[in-house]
Amino acid sequence: MTTTAPPTWLDLPADTGFGVGNLPYGVFSTPGTGRRTGVAIGDLVLDLAAATGDGVHATGSLNAFLARGPEAWRELRAQLTAWFTDDGHRGTVAPHLVPRSQVTMHLPVEVADYVDFYSSQHHAENLGRMFRPDSEPLTPNWKHLPIGYHGRAGTVQVSGTPVLRPSGQRKAPTDDAPTFGPSQRLDIEAEIGFVVGTPSEPGTRVPLSAFPDHVFGACVVNDWSARDLQSWEYVPLGPFLGKSFLTSVSPWVVPLAALEAARVTPPARDPRPLPYLDDTDGEPWGLDIAIEVRLNGEIVSCPPFDLMYWTPAQQLAHMTVNGASLRTGDLYASGTVSGPQADQRGSFIELSWGGKEPLRLPDGTTRTFLEDGDLVTITATAPGPHGTRIAFGDVTGRIEPAR
Amino acid sequence: MTTTAPPTWLDLPADTGFGVGNLPYGVFSTPGTGRRTGVAIGDLVLDLAAATGDGVHATGSLNAFLARGPEAWRELRAQLTAWFTDDGHRGTVAPHLVPRSQVTMHLPVEVADYVDFYSSQHHAENLGRMFRPDSEPLTPNWKHLPIGYHGRAGTVQVSGTPVLRPSGQRKAPTDDAPTFGPSQRLDIEAEIGFVVGTPSEPGTRVPLSAFPDHVFGACVVNDWSARDLQSWEYVPLGPFLGKSFLTSVSPWVVPLAALEAARVTPPARDPRPLPYLDDTDGEPWGLDIAIEVRLNGEIVSCPPFDLMYWTPAQQLAHMTVNGASLRTGDLYASGTVSGPQADQRGSFIELSWGGKEPLRLPDGTTRTFLEDGDLVTITATAPGPHGTRIAFGDVTGRIEPAR
Repeated sequence: MTTTAPPTWLDLPADTGFGVGNLPYGVFSTPGTGRRTGVAIGDLVLDLAAATGDGVHATGSLNAFLARGPEAWRELRAQLTAWFTDDGHRGTVAPHLVPRSQVTMHLPVEVADYVDFYSSQHHAENLGRMFRPDSEPLTPNWKHLPIGYHGRAGTVQVSGTPVLRPSGQRKAPTDDAPTFGPSQRLDIEAEIGFVVGTPSEPGTRVPLSAFPDHVFGACVVNDWSARDLQSWEYVPLGPFLGKSFLTSVSPWVVPLAALEAARVTPPARDPRPLPYLDDTDGEPWGLDIAIEVRLNGEIVSCPPFDLMYWTPAQQLAHMTVNGASLRTGDLYASGTVSGPQADQRGSFIELSWGGKEPLRLPDGTTRTFLEDGDLVTITATAPGPHGTRIAFGDVTGRIEPAR
Repeated sequence: MTTTAPPTWLDLPADTGFGVGNLPYGVFSTPGTGRRTGVAIGDLVLDLAAATGDGVHATGSLNAFLARGPEAWRELRAQLTAWFTDDGHRGTVAPHLVPRSQVTMHLPVEVADYVDFYSSQHHAENLGRMFRPDSEPLTPNWKHLPIGYHGRAGTVQVSGTPVLRPSGQRKAPTDDAPTFGPSQRLDIEAEIGFVVGTPSEPGTRVPLSAFPDHVFGACVVNDWSARDLQSWEYVPLGPFLGKSFLTSVSPWVVPLAALEAARVTPPARDPRPLPYLDDTDGEPWGLDIAIEVRLNGEIVSCPPFDLMYWTPAQQLAHMTVNGASLRTGDLYASGTVSGPQADQRGSFIELSWGGKEPLRLPDGTTRTFLEDGDLVTITATAPGPHGTRIAFGDVTGRIEPAR
């Protein structure tokens, strides 16, 4: 895959998704040391705090570095590229490389506000058909604006955090009254998240063209969902406890700069969006990211991000068009990514069609929603620079029984 | 009013709402000095950083002090009471008192997550009638759980912050398509907010009885709302841009300890709530807080908080029943407070019945929604210790034209 990748003095695995064209940022620790910023390269992590001597990389989150803005992001990326491609830097850089197998990864970003969008047409149509069978699948506003809502920033955690089955009120349409107990319809939402670096002033808007000035990079998100809690609570003010128990993110944030080769034209929009959302004459930010969802090691779905109706640039423009300010560390996720095919659906409620059509697994068992002990892993890759392929970090979680 | 108030060596105004029984906390600065914690007493502020020498009060927000937990809150309150009531402390305390007229107040809490509830039955019924005229005013879940949703923590600002009229998509039911422009239905929501001090662990619940162990105190909240943006965007995932541009809070956080005399029995609930929300055999946290809403100086509404269907203790128990963790600085608001009478409605959409019945103002003009230049002030008082009456800080904001 690395046909014309830049040469490097590092002995990288041939099929690595963490080549010189990727350079994602995360926060790691090793036994006995504090949290610090690292950059993934092959099977290694570069200790940025040690390699640069810059205290911004010893703060335990990416926020302080992200707040420096796009010029600082570009400079460090150029520095890292020079370090890894010029053999003359080997002596100074190599001592700060740590095997990834020896590090513990932490939440990369101190999340300020967390917003979840709903921008896959196939997902929205599927859920509309299941949740509101008597109405049109898409609400009248869906093709006019990227629908979104705020989630709970305080329960965004790094990949690997155990998923304690939540309890709450559930009421089937046929029940007289709600009952309380563990969720029986625990689900995933496979999404891509975007991390804001540069804040904005209250009362200002971030136009489509300013997306790369504010957004530092992207990660994989699993917005765990308790569908039974959600369907009972969500009218009229939206999801709350059905989502707020946990949202998992991949430990590595892939810089937008690494995603240039992944940019594609998004689907045609009809009707044409209002001017602040209209990217037809600009440089739209459709992204050809291939997602894979694994249940207990077996692929159950391959959601295609390139089909998302609204791009992350449009989501950002919309989120700020009312003058709402951005803070460093804001995280916004795409919404569940689903394609038109049954094996491209990014949630089990879609894969099992509301539990009515259980998914048959390779071992012969079936699954509707998640069971205790299940391990879910979401991975993503995208075209990288020079014909390479870049990887996002995985986001995993194992279901633990309700307490 | 201060019939049996504790004696104090301070010469407090007879009708002060900031007597020795209140002692609310805020963050202030004076020209040329940094932000630090203060306690309001009469028309003065005690500089806690200077008076205590404790660095926790020089951090520029209440968070670090709040994180110390209820024992520390009780100790400092006892210390303050001793200082203000025992003349022997006059010499050491008096030098650290600053006239309130000379200080600038700041956002008291670095807000972690912001949640807005919807717990006034009269408000929910009024909005249900207007937003969903073809359905029952209350959704089927309303009397089973305190409906809530996450708001934007990053746009919570202190009282006095200008209210820039937001722009966004508006679409009347009779319009073919949405248009973009300044909100034409800018509104308030008069609410009481509760500030979390003690965090909770992921996967644990905060039972009703633990409310005062986690919640430090209360403030007044104005959850500014653009009703035209909201009504177009909010199906199916709830309010987003119609709310996210600004939420204003009073500068003073009144400790729960000051609200003991304000506790009242909440309205009877029918049906009886599920056990985790059932406060009938406990010590419920209904609060007799009297709210006043002023438009350009004239009272337009007096919403009664004692009629709220769900209490802040129930809201907290619900918010955590799925295992969602709390962080120091979490803010949750009651939802718009409205009573059964027309002059007890906590929003202009209710006061003007969706704009159809303009409110007649004392100067002879009428008002449906807010106009540029309008000044809204929300105040609140409650029974305090020893027959006194305690005041919350005001929350004000003046509408500025859209940019």
